[in-house]
Amino acid sequence: MLKDELDIVIPTIRNLDFLEMWRPFFEPYHLIIVQDGDPAKTIKVPEGFDYELYNRNDINEILGPKASCISFKDSACRCFGYMVSKKKYIFTIDDDCFVSFLLSLSIGWVDRSVAKDPSGKDINALEQHIKNLLSPSTPFFFNTLYDPFAEGADFVRGYPFSLREGVPTAVSHGLWLNIPDYDAPTQLVKPLERNTRYVNAVFTIPKGTLFPMCGMNLAFDRELVGPAMYFGLMGDGQPIGRYDDMWAGWCTKVICDHLRLGVKTGLPYIWHSKASNPFVNLKKEYNGIFWQEEVIPFFQQAVLPRDCTTVQKCYIELSKQVREKLGKIDPYFNKLADAMLTWIEAWDELNPSLAPTAVPNGRQK
Amino acid sequence: MLKDELDIVIPTIRNLDFLEMWRPFFEPYHLIIVQDGDPAKTIKVPEGFDYELYNRNDINEILGPKASCISFKDSACRCFGYMVSKKKYIFTIDDDCFVSFLLSLSIGWVDRSVAKDPSGKDINALEQHIKNLLSPSTPFFFNTLYDPFAEGADFVRGYPFSLREGVPTAVSHGLWLNIPDYDAPTQLVKPLERNTRYVNAVFTIPKGTLFPMCGMNLAFDRELVGPAMYFGLMGDGQPIGRYDDMWAGWCTKVICDHLRLGVKTGLPYIWHSKASNPFVNLKKEYNGIFWQEEVIPFFQQAVLPRDCTTVQKCYIELSKQVREKLGKIDPYFNKLADAMLTWIEAWDELNPSLAPTAVPNGRQK
Repeated sequence: MLKDELDIVIPTIRNLDFLEMWRPFFEPYHLIIVQDGDPAKTIKVPEGFDYELYNRNDINEILGPKASCISFKDSACRCFGYMVSKKKYIFTIDDDCFVSFLLSLSIGWVDRSVAKDPSGKDINALEQHIKNLLSPSTPFFFNTLYDPFAEGADFVRGYPFSLREGVPTAVSHGLWLNIPDYDAPTQLVKPLERNTRYVNAVFTIPKGTLFPMCGMNLAFDRELVGPAMYFGLMGDGQPIGRYDDMWAGWCTKVICDHLRLGVKTGLPYIWHSKASNPFVNLKKEYNGIFWQEEVIPFFQQAVLPRDCTTVQKCYIELSKQVREKLGKIDPYFNKLADAMLTWIEAWDELNPSLAPTAVPNGRQK
Repeated sequence: MLKDELDIVIPTIRNLDFLEMWRPFFEPYHLIIVQDGDPAKTIKVPEGFDYELYNRNDINEILGPKASCISFKDSACRCFGYMVSKKKYIFTIDDDCFVSFLLSLSIGWVDRSVAKDPSGKDINALEQHIKNLLSPSTPFFFNTLYDPFAEGADFVRGYPFSLREGVPTAVSHGLWLNIPDYDAPTQLVKPLERNTRYVNAVFTIPKGTLFPMCGMNLAFDRELVGPAMYFGLMGDGQPIGRYDDMWAGWCTKVICDHLRLGVKTGLPYIWHSKASNPFVNLKKEYNGIFWQEEVIPFFQQAVLPRDCTTVQKCYIELSKQVREKLGKIDPYFNKLADAMLTWIEAWDELNPSLAPTAVPNGRQK
């Protein structure tokens, strides 16, 4: 089921031994591996997986000068995989994340009702993402029993009947047990904190509310929202890192709100095994920590005009607003606004069947 | 702790045997019992509880002609208890809700990590409400690990530091296991559905998002938001019932958003023992089901002017907008707009120390 409709995108710089843990879940699917860093290095992929692998040379060859929009030496490069995929759905995951007996044990301990198979069968993260994407979202009113489409749940008293149909779901944002996704300052202050709280629910993030989207365990509908999932300019040669997924999340949420699409967060959890180095992270993040104080209000106030009826049009309009309103924070945002346009051009080139009929040329102001 | 700062308000038409189940938790607190229906009937309260009881005669005597704003033959009468309380916090609960071994068993089964005492000690719903009210809310940005102030949790990467202080929490909305709070149509369609999903989390409902507030298991800060907790005109002589708590929830959320106060939902759960009759409910609800399709968009679009700096001022302004915009749906809303003003007048009379210095007279248009 969905075998021909979903690709798994993995950015990496190392051998993909972690795939052994995911074998029963990932083997039926096609993998798109985006190799970051030195293209001369050989990445080993365990036998039996169906995959294609792109290194920097491949990216440069396929995109030509437009390859400039794909980050280097940063997992932001994963969005190249979204672009070359030909499937309807994408699941992307970091290579230090596991399903595995650790998660099952943890869930068994925290919440036995979730491990439905009493034999202790592993949780199927992918299956939960697919469920999330295939059932509607409810962004216009909060349901206090959470996902009304989950088994045994519904809309509560006082929920308007006209809103119960919901809207199509574009994004399913999964969470992490063990190492939480903290910023460097929080990592430094709380080096030993682990997330052990398994919250058995899926939420629609309400319209008008932004959230910090993490790329570690994320699925989305490429046809609905793919061109918004650009992970920005990070890493090598850029003044910022670790804001790639945040950037994609802000842009995507604003566009989903405008186009009446849903964004969910919650289940599934994956087991995040390893904390990254907080000192290195601080160096990557400090500009972002500073800039987000202006960037988030910018996205909170961003309004897209009515004639932005496709994701591409919305994204091009957003890039204009980024240049206009964020360019004054730092020249980096002008470069980013350019890259946003390059990304859309490259996307449409590689995905002619998904391109809207008339994309306005947004580069001229 | 908080013994002198919290009252428990219970609307009822029967003997309060259910209190036996709550004895260890409620006995330290003062109860305000609002007797609905025939005032000649004697309500028995188990021994050992510290309580005051008001029947309809008492309400008429205390409020005089202003008693018209308090509903009769509907649990909406509970809001009289909020008005006569002199405490900072209110916890209100229906008389068919239990803590009890049923809840513990259920939680033990669903989520053992919550029943912290391995001896199987009951969950303390009241304690959780107090925790919710004493810790800040975060309505301006969604935290994907949910309540950042819970033990073992924090703000995730990408959460703006300027928003981490949060805002004071005005409302703590608790949930229900077993019988879910469904409207009559859903009750009729799913008579056997039970809520067995224990979601171990507390959420801030984001700014700008409305929710269906249920009065079954609710706590709030009377000093922060008391005058907004008017449960409207329901029951005897009114064309609507079962929208009392919804009305209070819509008004309160709009006012909290305006005054930068927080509303939380989630834990604690109580065990809701008995489904009300869906046929009776349908008769009470049908106007509400119809009207809410216009009333909810009204509240979603309601804007309060800047000079509405107190709950009272906000509430009087809302009553004006109700008259203006909802009066055309049905004359009932004009009556309700009047009652909203009467409620504020009665509130200020009974709570002179909480009254704002200058309440504009909103009745003249």
